[in-house]
Amino acid sequence: MSLLAPEPVIYLVEPYGGSIRRQNPNTPHVFWDDAAVTRGDGVFETILIRNGKPRNVERHLERFARSAEALELPVPDKEHWLKATEEAVADYVRERGGNPKEVKEAKCTWTLSRGRETTGVATAWLTVRDIDPDVRKQRDNGVKVVTTPRGFVADPEVPWMVGEAKTLNYAANMAALRWAREQGADDVIYVERETGRVLEGATSTVIMLKKGGRMRTPAPGPGVMAGTTQAALFALAEKEGFKCKAKDIYLNELLKAESVWLVSSTRICARVTHIDGTKLATPENEAEIKALISAAAR
Amino acid sequence: MSLLAPEPVIYLVEPYGGSIRRQNPNTPHVFWDDAAVTRGDGVFETILIRNGKPRNVERHLERFARSAEALELPVPDKEHWLKATEEAVADYVRERGGNPKEVKEAKCTWTLSRGRETTGVATAWLTVRDIDPDVRKQRDNGVKVVTTPRGFVADPEVPWMVGEAKTLNYAANMAALRWAREQGADDVIYVERETGRVLEGATSTVIMLKKGGRMRTPAPGPGVMAGTTQAALFALAEKEGFKCKAKDIYLNELLKAESVWLVSSTRICARVTHIDGTKLATPENEAEIKALISAAAR
Repeated sequence: MSLLAPEPVIYLVEPYGGSIRRQNPNTPHVFWDDAAVTRGDGVFETILIRNGKPRNVERHLERFARSAEALELPVPDKEHWLKATEEAVADYVRERGGNPKEVKEAKCTWTLSRGRETTGVATAWLTVRDIDPDVRKQRDNGVKVVTTPRGFVADPEVPWMVGEAKTLNYAANMAALRWAREQGADDVIYVERETGRVLEGATSTVIMLKKGGRMRTPAPGPGVMAGTTQAALFALAEKEGFKCKAKDIYLNELLKAESVWLVSSTRICARVTHIDGTKLATPENEAEIKALISAAAR
Repeated sequence: MSLLAPEPVIYLVEPYGGSIRRQNPNTPHVFWDDAAVTRGDGVFETILIRNGKPRNVERHLERFARSAEALELPVPDKEHWLKATEEAVADYVRERGGNPKEVKEAKCTWTLSRGRETTGVATAWLTVRDIDPDVRKQRDNGVKVVTTPRGFVADPEVPWMVGEAKTLNYAANMAALRWAREQGADDVIYVERETGRVLEGATSTVIMLKKGGRMRTPAPGPGVMAGTTQAALFALAEKEGFKCKAKDIYLNELLKAESVWLVSSTRICARVTHIDGTKLATPENEAEIKALISAAAR
């Protein structure tokens, strides 16, 4: 692990408490029969690290626990995951020069899988790595999106449905993103085919601003995951005098909104500049809103 | 690798042709940033090995290629995968005493993933392992099933939809199976909520027999994957004088059918003995049908 070529920091986390230990990123650690690999049967969270600290971490811990519970996985011990995260971040910062202020940002991912079929024991690990340069570019320049139906939506009346869990089953989202890129767009916004109701981005929550300081986001439910960044944003924005509501939003409202944003943990926010090829007007308060979301996420 | 404690045989397969090489199953080989792990972004096939040979292998190769194409993965080279399979099976047989006739059966799984985020190169491997004892028991004793809606069904009109691919996104199917087991059942049959239309099992195709040698299976489409075992069965059954059709089936038809079966590669077939607690009559020709399905799958 050289300072000249910093590598991601990986820690294996014992899912029932117990030890945490560093894993060399150049050596694989996931077995052939891990349910994460064979079935996508696990849950994850992505957390922004800023100035050496995990941000918005309580909300991530809560959603991680909810996801695990929904999949009947061992419920993560919050202290244990926090401690592992802090150790990993400390290593990450040390290996990049040791000054948390200089290592401004990183991306931390927690993964909890049902584990190996041959042992029946859950597996868990976390990674701390650099933020993708594309993500920074999208923060600065915004994103062009294309709209598309969700493809499929979980039926909440099915007794075993795990729709509220942030599972590893993202193959469809990745296919939607590839399709978006083929059309020269950066991201998608899922929109219900019949009604035009807005759901979410492929890996983000939609935020809409309307005149008079009104901030809206689609209400969580089937096809709309409750967002940790959105929750932090609304908490701060309310204090700053915005009127925030989670309620149904329709595509025609997006097109005439003051501004539209995709928010998520590590990208923080990206203003939507185009929807299906239609350019959205640049809002006067763009810098202010960006600063607000950034402050909330940090 | 001792003869006393035979291990699964794992081969890493270079996805663009090139080398295949043995992987120690006690050493993990999947990296932290493999799309199979982080997104379930890959495809797989499960193949029955019998008397040292992969069975129904052409249909598996074809579906594997279709799945890869649907996900825009490198299309698998058939010769390459066949060769890797043969080598792995030869090792498996040798390590269990060397007589293919004595090593009656094994389960081979092919996996092709989009690969590591940091390399952008697809990863692929295959495993050859023992058949789960539960699977044998279900062949012999049949299965109790509970019906449930699909949970979600892919929308075929969405341009990027990968509904026809056998992806690694099985978290929902696994949740459905856990729910079935909590109710004392062995498996589920997905049934469309509004219409009672029968779709498939969690990991199998539904076959229904009606009087007069009529054999039915739900037509493939959204929520119903085209089955390799079903295809082999229909090909043989037609020759044996059965009238085979893939068409819509409804739950009330299953309940009054001559017999109902779940078919898949390694379980081959399991007769459905109970649906939602209702015992199905034992058909007079049970042994004949079982022999027919087994002959087709082998």
